[in-house]
Amino acid sequence: MTRLQLDMVILNAAELLTLAGASHTPKLGKEMNELGIIEDGGVAIRGNQIVAVDTTKNIKRLVKPGSHPQIIDATNKTVLPGLIDPHAHLAFAGSREREFVQRLQGATYMEILEAGGGINVTVKATHKARRSTLVRLSQQILNRMLEYGTTTVEGKSGYGLDPKHEYKQLLAIRDLNLIHPIDVVPTFMGAHVVPPKYKYCSEEYVKLVMEKMIPTVAKKGLAEFCDVFAEQDVFTIDQARRILNQGKKYGLIPKVHADEMTTLGGAELAAEVGAISADHLLKVSNKGIQALAKAQIVAVLLPATAFVLMEKEYAPARKLIDAGVPIALATDFNPNCMTESMQLVMTLACLNMRMTPAEAISAATINAAHAINRTHIVGSLEPNKQADILVVDAPNHAYIPYHFGVNLVNTVIKSGKIAFSC
Amino acid sequence: MTRLQLDMVILNAAELLTLAGASHTPKLGKEMNELGIIEDGGVAIRGNQIVAVDTTKNIKRLVKPGSHPQIIDATNKTVLPGLIDPHAHLAFAGSREREFVQRLQGATYMEILEAGGGINVTVKATHKARRSTLVRLSQQILNRMLEYGTTTVEGKSGYGLDPKHEYKQLLAIRDLNLIHPIDVVPTFMGAHVVPPKYKYCSEEYVKLVMEKMIPTVAKKGLAEFCDVFAEQDVFTIDQARRILNQGKKYGLIPKVHADEMTTLGGAELAAEVGAISADHLLKVSNKGIQALAKAQIVAVLLPATAFVLMEKEYAPARKLIDAGVPIALATDFNPNCMTESMQLVMTLACLNMRMTPAEAISAATINAAHAINRTHIVGSLEPNKQADILVVDAPNHAYIPYHFGVNLVNTVIKSGKIAFSC
Repeated sequence: MTRLQLDMVILNAAELLTLAGASHTPKLGKEMNELGIIEDGGVAIRGNQIVAVDTTKNIKRLVKPGSHPQIIDATNKTVLPGLIDPHAHLAFAGSREREFVQRLQGATYMEILEAGGGINVTVKATHKARRSTLVRLSQQILNRMLEYGTTTVEGKSGYGLDPKHEYKQLLAIRDLNLIHPIDVVPTFMGAHVVPPKYKYCSEEYVKLVMEKMIPTVAKKGLAEFCDVFAEQDVFTIDQARRILNQGKKYGLIPKVHADEMTTLGGAELAAEVGAISADHLLKVSNKGIQALAKAQIVAVLLPATAFVLMEKEYAPARKLIDAGVPIALATDFNPNCMTESMQLVMTLACLNMRMTPAEAISAATINAAHAINRTHIVGSLEPNKQADILVVDAPNHAYIPYHFGVNLVNTVIKSGKIAFSC
Repeated sequence: MTRLQLDMVILNAAELLTLAGASHTPKLGKEMNELGIIEDGGVAIRGNQIVAVDTTKNIKRLVKPGSHPQIIDATNKTVLPGLIDPHAHLAFAGSREREFVQRLQGATYMEILEAGGGINVTVKATHKARRSTLVRLSQQILNRMLEYGTTTVEGKSGYGLDPKHEYKQLLAIRDLNLIHPIDVVPTFMGAHVVPPKYKYCSEEYVKLVMEKMIPTVAKKGLAEFCDVFAEQDVFTIDQARRILNQGKKYGLIPKVHADEMTTLGGAELAAEVGAISADHLLKVSNKGIQALAKAQIVAVLLPATAFVLMEKEYAPARKLIDAGVPIALATDFNPNCMTESMQLVMTLACLNMRMTPAEAISAATINAAHAINRTHIVGSLEPNKQADILVVDAPNHAYIPYHFGVNLVNTVIKSGKIAFSC
């Protein structure tokens, strides 16, 4: 046996969840319940990489005599991959608690919008803010995400809605990547909503997105993905199709805000354009589900949004899983859904979508990595992957969504270094 | 103006929520929306007491020249009374995440109980545990409660179900009070469930509670309140009445687990015996609501329990408020409802019971103090009250339930000392 010079070892985990073996294709159906559990498990780390994942006994044997790796004792704790949040809106300014109160009192989305509230409030505040202000505000969000166990997050623009301010958001996201331990994966979402001045000529805005913004975003390397909100009174399926195909032409992988409020066919469009994910899906049709299953597109479900918008029906997680659609979970962090906690999202997935704790964990790790094209680096505990690892104050994996509304994270290891410890 | 020797001053609060003026009678109806807000507010503290609550300018004027109180800068933050959690079960052992999974898969309470799960699992684990173990386990819970802003909590026994182990729980709660900054208010709840061996002779257990446990608990000064679970297949209204009246005879103030799963008349019983609170109330009748309103009994609502048990209907908060029943909120922390966070409870109260943020805050502070007879000490920021104060990372009070699932507490001041700071 080769003894290794290691920098860190994690030992004695009551349950070590490897999530191994699903880096090429996402977990489907019953596979989502298989976490690759090692009891009394350990991890060996060198530099920023995982070197071995095994029982504590075998990990101890790997240590070269005389070397002194940092030891993380995970006795009575669960060890799992850093959580991945594959759908979040970042680098915006302002908050909208006033609307939260209006919604509680029965105001609809449209009433709030017409009363001068809604997304335009955030767009105005984001326009006014300097890039450095957006960075500072998002840093606070990323700090909290990290404390609650998220080690990779997707960040969407979409509060600029003109070339200058969309680029400003994406540049702020680039800055965040440089200064913050969390990896932020950028998505261009100029087609988040039709700006008020294009209300009666949305095609002009679509043209601006396609002909000006997408080429520039691609040229400057500001984003990996291109996302569109396909929704009644927002962008039509046809507009979304053209935007996403234009994105593809410029190397931006499609994502779709699909079938959230109405059954518009966003899921089918995601399949048609070969999107990497279809997100929301509260109103997805059976045909849409079949299309996602056939094309093996990851359904990113966002139960915190349904929760905070007081939706009666959540996305049909069980139906999607039964149909063979791979599921991921995300926060949908945005001014309408202010939570950084993937832990709460997992609890909501269990209670309000009837996912099992194991399914929720698969959906928040390896399947979430699939939704943002990061399975070669993160999402599971396997040799040669980045050492993004959580030690959680839970005696087993089912305990994680069971003990809710608080932070169970004991230690966050990001790229081989302790990034948070309680 | 008298200048004072102060130990601590809080300055520059964007909103300071005093909750003043409701220490004699709880907040009712529209009063629940009145938080006694001081903009640019401050608090002056000497020893463990509040000396003054005013604008920052006036608080600064109080400081005696040459004295150097500790300064807490609350710029852009909200300052409010420490949260009070008036319904929690404490000093038990074991966890029940297995049941959580069974419930997700559709098992009913009764099916879980019959399969050897449910409360009896906790009773067995609590019997086995030493008092010192119960203290250690509860300390971890109280630590988290404190971090999330709770400065006073009620703690119920009810997992002993025999004299020896009920006393052990209450003694553990007494120990916790001595060693932990949080004030724990003890409630005897021997009548939590009928132990299996009394299944066909519940009257014998009622007799044990009434003739042995209550007198001993009272004599030893182990509790202030006596609580009963009045429910179909648990304790009848008649049994509950006799137990609560016996408690009263021995100086224990009645509380009732009322109308949670069935409309049994628990609210009416609470009014009849002059209980200090009626708790749960998911199935309270109109007659029950009228009885609570007339007797001005605090309704302690527990939305986290409804959430985790996936109830379709929560307690009718709006109906209760409209009828003039004072509302308090609590976690119901117990092995079935594992959350320490009164912040999440407030968010749930808003989203799932349509309370306003201001109502939720009244319900988690001054009205919660009424539910456990502590308004002379805590529940509002007023001169001569104990300095239990939160500084929260929120620019205004509505932001507190809006930004959910994480901990917004910046600083917890308990009895005039910083007990937690992030």
